[in-house]
Amino acid sequence: MPNISTKGLSMPESPIRKLVPFAEAAKKRGINVIHLNIGQPDIKTPQVALDAVKKNSITTLSYSKTEGNDSYRTKLATYYLKHGIEITAEDILVTTGASEGLSFVIGSIADTDDEIIVPEPFYANYNSFSIAFGVNVVPIVSKIETGFALPSIADFENAITAKTKAILICNPNNPTGYLYSEEEIKQLAHLVKKHDLFFIVDEVYREFVYDGKEHYSALKEKNIDDHCIVIDSVSKRYSMCGARIGCVITKNKTLKNTILKFMQARLSPPSYAQIASEAALDTPQEYFDEVIAEYVLRRDTLIQGLNKISGVKVISPQGAFYCIVELPIKDSDTFAQWMLEHFNIANETVMVAPAAGFYATEGLGKNQIRIAYVLDKETLKRAICILEQALKEYRLNED
Amino acid sequence: MPNISTKGLSMPESPIRKLVPFAEAAKKRGINVIHLNIGQPDIKTPQVALDAVKKNSITTLSYSKTEGNDSYRTKLATYYLKHGIEITAEDILVTTGASEGLSFVIGSIADTDDEIIVPEPFYANYNSFSIAFGVNVVPIVSKIETGFALPSIADFENAITAKTKAILICNPNNPTGYLYSEEEIKQLAHLVKKHDLFFIVDEVYREFVYDGKEHYSALKEKNIDDHCIVIDSVSKRYSMCGARIGCVITKNKTLKNTILKFMQARLSPPSYAQIASEAALDTPQEYFDEVIAEYVLRRDTLIQGLNKISGVKVISPQGAFYCIVELPIKDSDTFAQWMLEHFNIANETVMVAPAAGFYATEGLGKNQIRIAYVLDKETLKRAICILEQALKEYRLNED
Ligand SMILES: Cc1ncc(COP(=O)(O)O)c(C=O)c1O
Ligand SMILES: Cc1ncc(COP(=O)(O)O)c(C=O)c1O
Repeated sequence: MPNISTKGLSMPESPIRKLVPFAEAAKKRGINVIHLNIGQPDIKTPQVALDAVKKNSITTLSYSKTEGNDSYRTKLATYYLKHGIEITAEDILVTTGASEGLSFVIGSIADTDDEIIVPEPFYANYNSFSIAFGVNVVPIVSKIETGFALPSIADFENAITAKTKAILICNPNNPTGYLYSEEEIKQLAHLVKKHDLFFIVDEVYREFVYDGKEHYSALKEKNIDDHCIVIDSVSKRYSMCGARIGCVITKNKTLKNTILKFMQARLSPPSYAQIASEAALDTPQEYFDEVIAEYVLRRDTLIQGLNKISGVKVISPQGAFYCIVELPIKDSDTFAQWMLEHFNIANETVMVAPAAGFYATEGLGKNQIRIAYVLDKETLKRAICILEQALKEYRLNED
Repeated sequence: MPNISTKGLSMPESPIRKLVPFAEAAKKRGINVIHLNIGQPDIKTPQVALDAVKKNSITTLSYSKTEGNDSYRTKLATYYLKHGIEITAEDILVTTGASEGLSFVIGSIADTDDEIIVPEPFYANYNSFSIAFGVNVVPIVSKIETGFALPSIADFENAITAKTKAILICNPNNPTGYLYSEEEIKQLAHLVKKHDLFFIVDEVYREFVYDGKEHYSALKEKNIDDHCIVIDSVSKRYSMCGARIGCVITKNKTLKNTILKFMQARLSPPSYAQIASEAALDTPQEYFDEVIAEYVLRRDTLIQGLNKISGVKVISPQGAFYCIVELPIKDSDTFAQWMLEHFNIANETVMVAPAAGFYATEGLGKNQIRIAYVLDKETLKRAICILEQALKEYRLNED
């Protein structure tokens, strides 16, 4: 048999994937599995987006423009303007999800053995996209003790080498729920300027910000036009994960032209999904207000519940819809699998994401899990109850 | 400004792209530009596919399964069975277009500096997908004199090195229209087995075969299950280029698991488009009969017309909807641009793709163009007339 490539071999499996067979087996045994492991919201997609697709008048479903339909890009630019972000349609490249955008950005700025600095824990696929191009993610630990705030600038400076090409953050953060402050963004803006690095900011959760806080986009920073790359997506904002529409925003013309070459090779982003995404821009403000209220309710339910479990540590997230939970156990991988294999209350159990997969540093996150609070309050309450009892039972037998 | 990556810099622009500004300028001057340069058919998408999307009952547009919806993969397997190809749903990985499939396959089998052998001229993006991973395309010339038939096996063997990972062909071929015979596929099957290489066959034009000929899929070859990788797409088959749905078919489990890791990182293929693609499988045979008859008419119109132009050489294609045309000029790049800038008949001109972009060997294809006969007969007739007059006028002034 011919050989698989080295990068193919080193490409990690999704941190959730290895538990999937155990979840499927549980379902086969009649167990209802509550999925707190993935960021697939149950929230309805805005009607205006769904309707636009139903009412489409396409007769030949042709390739769209490589960088996305002009009508969509133009309208999308006004969305950012409304959020105080001054960009034009030309600064927007429409990609097949934020995923493709991240991938093309990494390919455009980094070669084999180059480095990208990312505070950990981080969205696990940053690692996959990097490995695909032979690029190394260099992690800087952010700690639960400091609420997963930005590590010190000194930590970043210590990590910068001749091979460093970019600093990548996700704001608000998946998996920590941390919302970076204007001050923190400014510190990083100063840093990338000083060391002539790219500053990649994944803002796919930009609208999911709670407690009256405001999201400070990296695009608001002046003087870093050549450095700043923002990644966005309709996936979470409009609960349109299946659309596969995202974008890369940058004012750096050379970079834009480079990314465009990657985009030309794959021809165009999906056409139906662009119709949905363009229409979604007309989603009324009430939709967002309701969604945010719902997430706050879920978050509060979750955090209050978790805080009542002895030995559990969690930070109330200010954004996105995830949190990292520290558990009074040694190995969350084993625990998560055990819940699927050996535990249930009234034929129901919980699937969580072991957090080690969100760290690049070996050994970190082993007593942590990530929870996505993408389900309704009542389900979350049952899930917390199951988690509490599971922990009790599991700890009796842990090694 | 931070640096662009080496691979970003070496990523080629689409061979058509550099003429786009001239086409746009022509349009601004009121010139109607007949596009023979791109493989975007004007054919209607099957109604059954369009209707399925209009009638969809999605309320939350969620991620689909990473490897594609099971219902689609199962039904797609029966499509291949009907064509005498024995595969199961498990052998199919649904990708975001053939483009993504090609990209993930190359990433899964080849590392930096590895080589993939491809007969040239070839679909230009094979080069882009390879460059993105630092992989080198090693061309073997196929010649217009032999009708672009498979180069000799000796040519392939001479090109094989320790770094060769795969042989890649497109059948029927874009840009030559050549249909590889069963005998040629068998020769390559033997070769890849002998040298333990992967055999990637791009069959996106599998249904576009003329003159009663039959397409012989590489998947029909026994004994190369670990080597054979077929790439397919709904783009051309159902005139659904904008769907962005393709697939990778292989029985090699290790390879499948590796490709799956690339797929997991990008989450899922587009959901609406999978609905369309699944429904398209119910397209009645008459649709294909009509489409094929239409392409034969177009091909014959084109080839007869071109054969009447003095100094022009062209092979009547047996498949796909492209042909390579040799012109009595020195530089088709300059000629194609000149037609857009300086020539028209009754305010109409023609845009063609200079063929050099389809060759990897420097200097080849300079007196050739690729024509896509994706427009109706009457338009094609006008285009030939324009081409003939343009050649006459251009040659008067060619250096
Ligand atoms: C932080 C982050 N970035 C990017 C993505 C990918 O988003 P998309 O669906 O737009 O590819 C996700 C999806 O969960 C995410 O959590
Ligand atoms: C030979 C060949 N392979 C692959 C593709 C890409 O197809 P898709 O639209 O499925 O990405 C094309 C598109 O023109 C093609 O001609």
